[in-house]
Amino acid sequence: MKTQHPLSVKAYRAEGFVGDYQRRIREVVIPYQYQILCDEIEDAQKSHVIQNFINAGKVLRGEGAGDGFYGMVFQDSDAAKWLEAAAYSLACCPDENLEHTADELIRVIADAQEPDGYLDTYYTIQDRKKRWTNLLEGHELYCAGHMIEAACAYFEATGKDTLLQVMEKNVAHIYDHFITEQNEGAPGHPEIELALLKMYHLTGKKHCLALAEYFINTRGQNPDFYREEAKQRSWTVWGNNGDDDDYQQSGLPVRKQKDAVGHAVRAVYLYTGMADLASTTDDASLYAACRRLWESITRRRMYVTGGIGSTVHGEAFSTDYDLPGDTAYCETCAAIGLIFFASRMLENELNGEYADIMERAFYNAVLAGIQLDGKRFFYVNPLEVNPGISGVIQTHSHVLPTRPKWYACACCPPNAARLINSLGSYAYGENEDTVFCHLFAEGDIAAKNGIAFHCKTKYPYDFCITYTMKTDGRLAIRIPGWSRSYALSVNGKAVEISPEQGYVFLTVKNKDAVCLKLDDAPHYIYASARVPALTGRVALSRGPLIYCFEGIDNEKDILSLSLKSGGTLQASPWDGQLLNGTVTITAEAYRRNDTNSLYTEETPDWKPCTATAVPYYTWGNRGENQMRVWMPERS
Amino acid sequence: MKTQHPLSVKAYRAEGFVGDYQRRIREVVIPYQYQILCDEIEDAQKSHVIQNFINAGKVLRGEGAGDGFYGMVFQDSDAAKWLEAAAYSLACCPDENLEHTADELIRVIADAQEPDGYLDTYYTIQDRKKRWTNLLEGHELYCAGHMIEAACAYFEATGKDTLLQVMEKNVAHIYDHFITEQNEGAPGHPEIELALLKMYHLTGKKHCLALAEYFINTRGQNPDFYREEAKQRSWTVWGNNGDDDDYQQSGLPVRKQKDAVGHAVRAVYLYTGMADLASTTDDASLYAACRRLWESITRRRMYVTGGIGSTVHGEAFSTDYDLPGDTAYCETCAAIGLIFFASRMLENELNGEYADIMERAFYNAVLAGIQLDGKRFFYVNPLEVNPGISGVIQTHSHVLPTRPKWYACACCPPNAARLINSLGSYAYGENEDTVFCHLFAEGDIAAKNGIAFHCKTKYPYDFCITYTMKTDGRLAIRIPGWSRSYALSVNGKAVEISPEQGYVFLTVKNKDAVCLKLDDAPHYIYASARVPALTGRVALSRGPLIYCFEGIDNEKDILSLSLKSGGTLQASPWDGQLLNGTVTITAEAYRRNDTNSLYTEETPDWKPCTATAVPYYTWGNRGENQMRVWMPERS
Repeated sequence: MKTQHPLSVKAYRAEGFVGDYQRRIREVVIPYQYQILCDEIEDAQKSHVIQNFINAGKVLRGEGAGDGFYGMVFQDSDAAKWLEAAAYSLACCPDENLEHTADELIRVIADAQEPDGYLDTYYTIQDRKKRWTNLLEGHELYCAGHMIEAACAYFEATGKDTLLQVMEKNVAHIYDHFITEQNEGAPGHPEIELALLKMYHLTGKKHCLALAEYFINTRGQNPDFYREEAKQRSWTVWGNNGDDDDYQQSGLPVRKQKDAVGHAVRAVYLYTGMADLASTTDDASLYAACRRLWESITRRRMYVTGGIGSTVHGEAFSTDYDLPGDTAYCETCAAIGLIFFASRMLENELNGEYADIMERAFYNAVLAGIQLDGKRFFYVNPLEVNPGISGVIQTHSHVLPTRPKWYACACCPPNAARLINSLGSYAYGENEDTVFCHLFAEGDIAAKNGIAFHCKTKYPYDFCITYTMKTDGRLAIRIPGWSRSYALSVNGKAVEISPEQGYVFLTVKNKDAVCLKLDDAPHYIYASARVPALTGRVALSRGPLIYCFEGIDNEKDILSLSLKSGGTLQASPWDGQLLNGTVTITAEAYRRNDTNSLYTEETPDWKPCTATAVPYYTWGNRGENQMRVWMPERS
Repeated sequence: MKTQHPLSVKAYRAEGFVGDYQRRIREVVIPYQYQILCDEIEDAQKSHVIQNFINAGKVLRGEGAGDGFYGMVFQDSDAAKWLEAAAYSLACCPDENLEHTADELIRVIADAQEPDGYLDTYYTIQDRKKRWTNLLEGHELYCAGHMIEAACAYFEATGKDTLLQVMEKNVAHIYDHFITEQNEGAPGHPEIELALLKMYHLTGKKHCLALAEYFINTRGQNPDFYREEAKQRSWTVWGNNGDDDDYQQSGLPVRKQKDAVGHAVRAVYLYTGMADLASTTDDASLYAACRRLWESITRRRMYVTGGIGSTVHGEAFSTDYDLPGDTAYCETCAAIGLIFFASRMLENELNGEYADIMERAFYNAVLAGIQLDGKRFFYVNPLEVNPGISGVIQTHSHVLPTRPKWYACACCPPNAARLINSLGSYAYGENEDTVFCHLFAEGDIAAKNGIAFHCKTKYPYDFCITYTMKTDGRLAIRIPGWSRSYALSVNGKAVEISPEQGYVFLTVKNKDAVCLKLDDAPHYIYASARVPALTGRVALSRGPLIYCFEGIDNEKDILSLSLKSGGTLQASPWDGQLLNGTVTITAEAYRRNDTNSLYTEETPDWKPCTATAVPYYTWGNRGENQMRVWMPERS
């Protein structure tokens, strides 16, 4: 039994901060990424994605393989994620040209589907005998999952079902292989589980649910599965031997898993599917496992930005309280996956804790992945950058100090695009009689349950949120955990309601104006004393935004700065010119002199000063630069 | 022109702190390591070193190869280092059994020498055609270097020249190959340069000097040498392709090198040879290069313990100011090599700075490599250990929290043994009319220049050093850079002399008692603000000892501790029971409460307390344990 479910993407027309981001995705990212898929950007990494589908179609028609397959084994998924982002864009903003482009791409994809429903250009072009022989590395189910998500999104956005039919045929093929023919296996990279559940929620077709259940429940039942699979075949993709059970979360049945381990994106995609299945089937033991894994992440293995994945080795979680800032991995996709997971946890249990983390990951770890102009992207989102070290020495070679244009493994940019353009589904939920305001996102809301209203706010920079009703209805509004105070009024009249698990419930009438005021003060944040990397350090936040210090705002030297313990923090007025418009924080601080020698017994001289912080998501937009989230504290 | 040169090992009979260490090396380490070389220790890594020599002898006699070669390509060097340590032991303490064992080993080694003088069991056993075809990885010159050092040491200790003759024949062979036959090349792992100079100083034979000069001067002249070499052969050891010029310091001619780069042991062995050559040949441009490299290390790339090598990748220097404590490499051998380098720099220029670093590296980075009972060893010497992270997760897998018994690559334990048992050569120097007291090492000194005296001190725990003369003579006594004050008296009468470049010079008579009192107060140490890992942190020292905090002395939780800025530091009375006898430091500190959540806006509650530190070299002797050198500071 779901507490509520996400609002349809079409039901939210974004304005304000989210609207600006969605427009940038629409106007810059989606066209740019399509050019990438077509290999029309000269100095970016080659993609070949669309050509792979074209070449697979040729193979199926007996016309040869053209110039063959190029790219990662999961290259197809880039097309799927682009299509999904395009679908969400079309859902809000009809665009004939974009729809035509998408229709054409869908036609090319449909042409690449084999007669039995199989769809994966890597195998169709290169060697069809390899199909389903390498679940560990082969990414067939991962690619299918993304294409299922794209098909659902495109159907919801446009009503067109070509891709949905293709993917239903593909799902039937997969069902036959794993269920009917009883071939054992679960995907090395989870993704299809959450996608099958999306398809089930859209179409109601039971075999989608059954297949998702199979993949989730079979995982880890036979911990030797991937080792045995490897013995049966003579080929590999990267040479993973399947011994690292943690990497693909296959060491234990999912209900027995306790710690978030391994490749962070795989982990949270799996947990997302598990959480969706738990609420869909009222599975208490599965939800209990999800809850344990949630706590493992958010209480012991998550950065303050909502980033996850402490280590470059396996792009993975490492261990409890290991949260180094300067070698963090914090892949953009992993933070996106954490948002998926949080959203599905809210469907199990309406608890503001889930929305708090969803918000933190969105405004910090995810948005930092995108350059403010939408043209460049981070894959890795560190919490500290030191030019000369970051991106240079081998231990820090993954920590780039500025955003590159594109990546050979281009998972993050289209993933961010599809999240942002479907943000309404994460910001708002509904059930039969209530709309749930999980995040504060300006714009028009028109839920399927008939409730409609407009939300006005300059969030995340101003903390007044006004909901003007267009119908009667019931609202559940989240009171964020970070807000030390809040005030609620209806039509100017104060209302006293205590939040239940982080939400207040209000029954309102058409034309009522519900106004929520949250704490707008900047705050210090401290970490648990169990985190070795963060002892003696402090970070700053205001609202959902984590702040950071960059050299450019601080005399090109932030290493000499310590923040004053208990010092005054001052939010600046809104500056529309700075970093696409932002609010900075000025903190009382001390700046030390440097010493002549590397080590000295002379006590440094500390002079009072102020230090200026900018929101973390805006870092790295002004050239190569020092950056630090966690600063030493000094009284 | 050398300012002075090291005292012969035989000229110093150690007592006190150094004497205890030498006895442990003699009684525990040397016998234990010999058992290792013979594969008589059951649960230690296999060595096979002596058997390799036996098998090579069989090959040469046409008796087959026995059970063949086993181990690293440089396995022979373990025998050389053991022999050298044994020689230094015999120099001070005659021991018939040990000398007999060493003589036997030398006989086996001599049997393994090919008729043309070549000596390397890896090649003699496996494939003689590979000789001299892989200078990058092959380690023939490295092994020769260590065996030359052993030969010189054994001759000096015992007057026996069997091994010296073997190695003179070997050097003649190498000279023929590189000089007479004009085969280009320099060793991938420097070591033979410093060894050839030792042999030259011992024997006066010019071709040793010429060969050392050749290897030093040819290095980096043809930066493509190793790449071209690799193209000429069809085999590799590890597959190094020679492209990483920095790794083996081959990118530039040595006189043009500015930054200490690459594999830290290779670097300091090279610089040691360079510095010796500079003073031997009065080469100002070479000394200038040494000085630049010295400054690169000690002003920008050295840990406060004297450890060097910031990164596990290539066991190498990384870049300026990159000095992370918890992932430090700080190989014991590299600190030993830094002592070699410092000692040779003192021969160029009498400057207390060199002896200060020599002392710091010895009492901290080197001694920490050895368990207090002499039975276990660290290869890596970190400045912070967090159980659960250190030695466990991949980024920290090299950072073991306790000392293992032996290593497959067993360079460090015998290296430490030979350094400690020859410490007199580093502690004391002489020239025609003066003895130089670089380090404060208790015992009897009888220099070749005729000056003799006894040094009495409980250093490094007490800071009174008394020199009682047995002859007339002139002493140059170092006043350490760390000592804020000093007092000098002769026969109880204060003497006012200002140090020149860190040394005071005294002309004294037989039976005079020279007493030096140094600063015995504990001090805080601060790092340059350019070191990202050390901002807001402070360390403790007393005399030459760097201190650290271990969980076992601090309620099993040092992460919650911050040291009080400017707080009182109190040295304990001598405790003969603790850690083989030591002095702890109690520091005013604060301990914070932990938070319920990973991140919180609640200001932690800090309570005044005291924290207890022990000398860094004693860490890890009481089980797995938190350890930290650099602590957050709080006022």
